[in-house]
Amino acid sequence: MPKLKPEELAARRMEIIEAARACFLRSGFHQTTTDEICHEASITPGGLYHYFGSKDELIAAVVERSAETATERMRSLIAEADDAESAFRQVAGFFFDAMQDTDIDNVTRLEIEIWAEALMNEELAKTGRSAWKLRQDWLEALVQRGIDDGVYDAKVVEARAMASLLMAIYVGLRVGRLLGGETFDTPGAMRSLFMMHAGRLMSDQAELPVPTG
Amino acid sequence: MPKLKPEELAARRMEIIEAARACFLRSGFHQTTTDEICHEASITPGGLYHYFGSKDELIAAVVERSAETATERMRSLIAEADDAESAFRQVAGFFFDAMQDTDIDNVTRLEIEIWAEALMNEELAKTGRSAWKLRQDWLEALVQRGIDDGVYDAKVVEARAMASLLMAIYVGLRVGRLLGGETFDTPGAMRSLFMMHAGRLMSDQAELPVPTG
Repeated sequence: MPKLKPEELAARRMEIIEAARACFLRSGFHQTTTDEICHEASITPGGLYHYFGSKDELIAAVVERSAETATERMRSLIAEADDAESAFRQVAGFFFDAMQDTDIDNVTRLEIEIWAEALMNEELAKTGRSAWKLRQDWLEALVQRGIDDGVYDAKVVEARAMASLLMAIYVGLRVGRLLGGETFDTPGAMRSLFMMHAGRLMSDQAELPVPTG
Repeated sequence: MPKLKPEELAARRMEIIEAARACFLRSGFHQTTTDEICHEASITPGGLYHYFGSKDELIAAVVERSAETATERMRSLIAEADDAESAFRQVAGFFFDAMQDTDIDNVTRLEIEIWAEALMNEELAKTGRSAWKLRQDWLEALVQRGIDDGVYDAKVVEARAMASLLMAIYVGLRVGRLLGGETFDTPGAMRSLFMMHAGRLMSDQAELPVPTG
């Protein structure tokens, strides 16, 4: 094994993570072999072992990296936005496009496989919770900006609660798209979400129930 | 094997399905052995095989039965409701209670295990889609009642689209509760959902974006 500088080691590590993720997305989590990952990353099994002591370590790194990538993309997306309303528009547009992209099904597929694995592996479950927190914290900052800028009603909207709901909706829409079959109307569900978010669901005569206490 | 009448066979079949579901919920889907199911159902492996030719068949029956049970419970819940508003209140109350119940985590756990299995088993995926349809169709009927009774704005709300969204939210909230860790605020997400549904999120000054086209 040639001597590598720390930054070269880190870059190589990142390449392996990306290669593993590509294999998982293409072949499924359980079907992917170490050989396939080594081939994709142009590394020997011995070399791979130098970076990741076990398949579990590699999976955890993929989960972490996916959350970081998603969060970075979001951050850069709204970095240019001048105010909360235009940030919302940016994010809404991104979600709308992402949900129409058939590639998202492979991502959801991998996520479900990892959830199932995490049910039997507490270390992976912990990594999964960190990844969830990374995404939800980012959403919370967005919601907080909406509150601070006066878009959301500060008396009604609580940032962490609302961010929890938005995370749940994002997850649920993707599961529905992948597993709901023809019954599940993805674009319609997205439209309904935006209408609901904008408070346009109910007719003028009606009052919809809200929780008490 | 004693001769049983058709209705006795059907009742015994149902008992086995319930026993299998209890085992899956308790021990997890992969950890459950045929022996455990036989013990729970007080049946021999040979007897079990008479009703279900394979573990896959039994799993499919559990998925179907769970969807039927959930739908029946919902139907009976709103059967007494006089109008859409009170039906909404009934359903909202039911979801609110269900989401606070720690038992729901076991149900979500089993569901995730079955989703992961369905990714590798097209027959189970098909059963899963039927089960999804059964639930979503019921929600669609509820939404349609809301439209017909003038609670929802008929120009805005489309029943299948809205039912898709509600299914997605229900699924996502349960996944968040189980896997999101301490970051995920389940009661807060539920409150936010009801506030969003009632159109109470935004301040008087703000316009929230809605999709165009």
